[in-house]
Amino acid sequence: MGLRGKIRDIPDFPKKGIVFKDITPLLRDKDAFREAIDALARRYEGDSVDVILGAEARGFVIGGALAYKLGVGFVPARKPGKLPHNVTKAEYELEYGMDSLEMHQDAIEPGDKVLIVDDVLATGGTASAKVDLVEKMGGKVAGVAFLIELTFLNGREKLKGYDVFSLIQY
Amino acid sequence: MGLRGKIRDIPDFPKKGIVFKDITPLLRDKDAFREAIDALARRYEGDSVDVILGAEARGFVIGGALAYKLGVGFVPARKPGKLPHNVTKAEYELEYGMDSLEMHQDAIEPGDKVLIVDDVLATGGTASAKVDLVEKMGGKVAGVAFLIELTFLNGREKLKGYDVFSLIQY
Repeated sequence: MGLRGKIRDIPDFPKKGIVFKDITPLLRDKDAFREAIDALARRYEGDSVDVILGAEARGFVIGGALAYKLGVGFVPARKPGKLPHNVTKAEYELEYGMDSLEMHQDAIEPGDKVLIVDDVLATGGTASAKVDLVEKMGGKVAGVAFLIELTFLNGREKLKGYDVFSLIQY
Repeated sequence: MGLRGKIRDIPDFPKKGIVFKDITPLLRDKDAFREAIDALARRYEGDSVDVILGAEARGFVIGGALAYKLGVGFVPARKPGKLPHNVTKAEYELEYGMDSLEMHQDAIEPGDKVLIVDDVLATGGTASAKVDLVEKMGGKVAGVAFLIELTFLNGREKLKGYDVFSLIQY
């Protein structure tokens, strides 16, 4: 698969010592973008996914395209204060301090099978916050899918018991 | 078209006196989401669009899905400091003060036909900043497409000379 060649390493972003995996060359390339979305879709076609949950901002691009391809709806998880209606919140740990994600309270209906999609699985902090949000609202996590997994950060540990899938591993 | 019934009015968001058009019920509904993306795609199929430009965050959902449907790549415009590589910046006016959007310098190649996509055309400020970015990089604006147009804000005035299209008008 040529997708790996479309991921660009950016040293020292967002801060010194971090090598950021930049997915914009992959999104920019029509063949790579299509291949990535199709590969994710193949993994879940036939599964009964009711809706895709994507977190801002890069999760919106992949989640939106995948929702279209799978023929399901899309629900956003956003940073605090961005969503206009009544929200449910989940906190997660950062290296220093806490952050949180919000979803509309009516985004998930009890029993909905929700596929959580994001660009990168790193420490698993935001992914497990999304799992919490889905379960708080009575939804069922159908899977957690990533374009990229940074295996050395052991993010899967935080997602034990869930079906975790990634297209590209480092 | 039943899409209009899937847009929710939120009074006094983000501040008093503004009625916010919430598109999350439309994105959430698999039929409405598909209908909206297909309707946008029909408008541009056959046109030679090379790439779709979407601005964070809601423009990523619609732009990502539309790029997939049209079989083209996607490039993001983001708030300052979010993109990891070398960027080009365009400023735009807010009600009080200025804001700006950034794109990677290599996002657009000279001569690329770029379709700019966003959820809402309001005053046209961010849309014209995106037009500026595309043209700074030597791209050609193939069109500017919106899910919703707030016609009473006259955003089209700022986009004169460009092919502007919206699915739902208020």
